[in-house]
Amino acid sequence: MADQPLFAQRGSTEEVEEGRAFAPKFDADGLVTCVATDARSGEVLMVAHMNAQAIAKTIATGEAWYFSRSRKSLWRKGETSGHVQRVVEMRLDCDQDAVWIKVEQAGPGACHTGRRSCFYRAVPLGQGADASLRLEFRDAEKTFDPREAYGGGTKPGGDS
Amino acid sequence: MADQPLFAQRGSTEEVEEGRAFAPKFDADGLVTCVATDARSGEVLMVAHMNAQAIAKTIATGEAWYFSRSRKSLWRKGETSGHVQRVVEMRLDCDQDAVWIKVEQAGPGACHTGRRSCFYRAVPLGQGADASLRLEFRDAEKTFDPREAYGGGTKPGGDS
Repeated sequence: MADQPLFAQRGSTEEVEEGRAFAPKFDADGLVTCVATDARSGEVLMVAHMNAQAIAKTIATGEAWYFSRSRKSLWRKGETSGHVQRVVEMRLDCDQDAVWIKVEQAGPGACHTGRRSCFYRAVPLGQGADASLRLEFRDAEKTFDPREAYGGGTKPGGDS
Repeated sequence: MADQPLFAQRGSTEEVEEGRAFAPKFDADGLVTCVATDARSGEVLMVAHMNAQAIAKTIATGEAWYFSRSRKSLWRKGETSGHVQRVVEMRLDCDQDAVWIKVEQAGPGACHTGRRSCFYRAVPLGQGADASLRLEFRDAEKTFDPREAYGGGTKPGGDS
């Protein structure tokens, strides 16, 4: 059986933006950005990347697969921790270089630091930026022990 | 007056993840990823990029500034269309290479195609990916005429 192309070829701007063909725009490293939000709360859980294979696996299985830039490998979210993400809906942006997945997050959290979301700190606004700026922790309580979930080894959730 | 560094230097993983110093991890092009969500609905409006200056301007003004990869220039969201984004909260992820801003979107939409959000198409799940896959339009009604908003020239909202 000959290999079929996974995606459509990119056409004109009009076709990419207003058409129904799925023709992702991969960057120089072969990746698109993926934003995962909690399907119920709308909270952004994490930002990561997908290569062609990760997109295909996510579509086929309905579970989130990513590509780890640091480990340079395909990565099934939750493979180590059990904190898999069931994809409720997968959206694509206008120029097809970013994906938004709404997920049901299994287990107590998505972040490898032991928190529900990776976005547990706020940047204070309304001031000049300089090295003295201090982040504010928000929704930062740990919901699980990352050493137990990940065995103290690799950091499956921190590669965005 | 000597130039002050805009951000802290990156320290250990522990310092980056659990500390209060703002030390963004810029990619090879000097960018971080930014996700903008609607502060009320939680909907993802767009995904774009910020360089150091865009981050500093966003912090100082409380309005979203981005860096356009296609035009290679700093870009105040809404500069042409008037569809500015007032930043209600700015969050940072664990390894500090992605930013999440919750915004009040002025005007009828964020997307240069004339829609509220850039994510107006869904990728159907549960099938093998191949070139015959067809996207499904969702929440795709146009809320404004992009030719009027942008004057038919550059595409300020489509650079992600």
